Amino acid sequence: MKITLEKNHLMNAINIVSRAIASNSPMEILECILVETTADDVRLIANDTELAIETHIPAVIEVPGKIALKARFFADVIRKLPDSELVIETDEKGMTNITCERIHFNIGGLIGDDFSRLPQVEKEKKVVISQFDFKEMIRQTIFSVSDNANSRLMTGELLSISDNVLTVTSLDGHRISVRKKELAGSNENMEVIVPGKTLAEVSRILPGEAEDEVSLYVTENHILFEFEQTKVVSRLLEGKFYNITQMLSADYETKVIVNKNQFHQCLDRSTLFVRDSSRKPVIMKFEDDQMNLTIASQFGSMNDQLQIVKEGKDLTIGFDPKFLVDALRVIDDEEVSLYLINPIAPCIIRNDDGSYFYLILPINVNNNYA
Amino acid sequence: MKITLEKNHLMNAINIVSRAIASNSPMEILECILVETTADDVRLIANDTELAIETHIPAVIEVPGKIALKARFFADVIRKLPDSELVIETDEKGMTNITCERIHFNIGGLIGDDFSRLPQVEKEKKVVISQFDFKEMIRQTIFSVSDNANSRLMTGELLSISDNVLTVTSLDGHRISVRKKELAGSNENMEVIVPGKTLAEVSRILPGEAEDEVSLYVTENHILFEFEQTKVVSRLLEGKFYNITQMLSADYETKVIVNKNQFHQCLDRSTLFVRDSSRKPVIMKFEDDQMNLTIASQFGSMNDQLQIVKEGKDLTIGFDPKFLVDALRVIDDEEVSLYLINPIAPCIIRNDDGSYFYLILPINVNNNYA
Repeated sequence: MKITLEKNHLMNAINIVSRAIASNSPMEILECILVETTADDVRLIANDTELAIETHIPAVIEVPGKIALKARFFADVIRKLPDSELVIETDEKGMTNITCERIHFNIGGLIGDDFSRLPQVEKEKKVVISQFDFKEMIRQTIFSVSDNANSRLMTGELLSISDNVLTVTSLDGHRISVRKKELAGSNENMEVIVPGKTLAEVSRILPGEAEDEVSLYVTENHILFEFEQTKVVSRLLEGKFYNITQMLSADYETKVIVNKNQFHQCLDRSTLFVRDSSRKPVIMKFEDDQMNLTIASQFGSMNDQLQIVKEGKDLTIGFDPKFLVDALRVIDDEEVSLYLINPIAPCIIRNDDGSYFYLILPINVNNNYA
Repeated sequence: MKITLEKNHLMNAINIVSRAIASNSPMEILECILVETTADDVRLIANDTELAIETHIPAVIEVPGKIALKARFFADVIRKLPDSELVIETDEKGMTNITCERIHFNIGGLIGDDFSRLPQVEKEKKVVISQFDFKEMIRQTIFSVSDNANSRLMTGELLSISDNVLTVTSLDGHRISVRKKELAGSNENMEVIVPGKTLAEVSRILPGEAEDEVSLYVTENHILFEFEQTKVVSRLLEGKFYNITQMLSADYETKVIVNKNQFHQCLDRSTLFVRDSSRKPVIMKFEDDQMNLTIASQFGSMNDQLQIVKEGKDLTIGFDPKFLVDALRVIDDEEVSLYLINPIAPCIIRNDDGSYFYLILPINVNNNYA
């Protein structure tokens, strides 16, 4: 293979595909990036067997071919080269010569005959969404994906389309996060569970411009994300996602409206007392137009008051403050509405148009706290 | 104790004294900051027994007193408070109430009767230097302090004054770094060895403005740094520093002038091949008006050429590229001069006015490389 390309194009492409590089894999090839010529450009591929990424860059192809290079070292070499034109030339044994101006690097590669390219994904069911919207929906829900491999389905997020509305749902046994967005065009209904890790990596490499789009294609076992010169293919999680319809009831006994930033900062302060083994709740007492917050652990105690607008009954209820902080951090509204029933029923934070919905289970607070 | 002060003043002071907090000490008191009223302000003190820092902040003192608070938790609490006025109030058992606007924190402290304040340092020998200059001199030499506790004196830097010139010297057995600066006023000659850790911490908390000064006071066992509202006292290392006068000889057989940035970048690239157990040298061949650089290890090889101006004999010599990179990183000149004798004698990088001097031992390169 002999190709000429721009350092910046190559560096961007390496950064993109490196998201699918296995770290410390027993199989050397999984730590490699495949550089391969196509009919009119060069593509880079990485595949850690769960997630595969391919991206294309312009190049002058003198001799077609391919080479698999250790991702980390390849990235380090290219990063340290001047912003200039590179020539990459390989021999039949995998020796790779990288030349940039007067600098020559010689590094060993694998000929890459056993490199796994991206699984074929039939492009039948297509969903198109703004990169910005998709990236936001992931950011606003990914934090409540479970990292416990024992509840495998909870390590993924449900992407469902119904009546042309895309819903992204994640849950971890303590809380549920839901974001909704109406799609343009007309879309078939569907439901797939995408691994959280895939969504995190896609979100990281999506440029995220509002006017640019990402296309999603779904088959029985795979999902393909396509944007600009890049394709990401991931396995889907098999199974039936949890039915949360009953949890979404609009019933409540107490509704509280509070300034989002003040509430967020106050809860953030209270997380100082939730450390190590100490999982103490923050106790919120809603009384008339005031919320009293207190938290106490072996490290000390804190209390604070916030102005609220309350409808319905007074109530005292306890939460892990980190769960509330996670939800408030991704809500952009100036005010948020909390919907509550009693001290042992979940708290729901949602807006009127239904574009977001966060459910958080309380910590059962005994009378010592109340 | 009951005091009122500004959150920002307190936060800055905590950040300064925290540099002398022992981490994971078996003695709880060494992880604490002492907050103590004086006649007209409040001082914070931390002391890890090697290094002690004291800094003063304005405060309204309603009830004088003192309290020792766990540094990390205290810092976290203050950081999360609004930028506003704080009231700190303690009781005789060490319970500490911190109030800011409507927020109340209650945290446990130690009454601090056993807290060690700063050692007394007689202010006899005083040296005054611009903060900027002192901070630069440390940055430009600290990298060649040894971290090997077996050669204890090498873990410090020699600060010496002779003929009104301050010289800072560090060495680790592979290299020597020297910076010189003429002082204002007239200063007694002196020689002290200051622990590298002390200089690193002082350098971190010195604001470093050129027009502001830092004063150094030296006794037999201690050094005191005084600047603005802050005092830092450190133990000195006892012993006689290495005599390097012979190494400073101006003899050479080959002098090479090279563009500093090009040389630096080229060597930086070659460090890619110095990893893990592989301590391969970069081989530099000086021939006529060109320097050829090559390096090879199990990861591959690299070569590059640079234009040079050479006086004297041709020469081939090998170095650990990281040692050269460390020196070049802290030299601001556009061109540097290398002085060489033969392949087994040290390379010296120095300027004509003698304000810097870096000596680096070569790696003995056998004929296979040459």
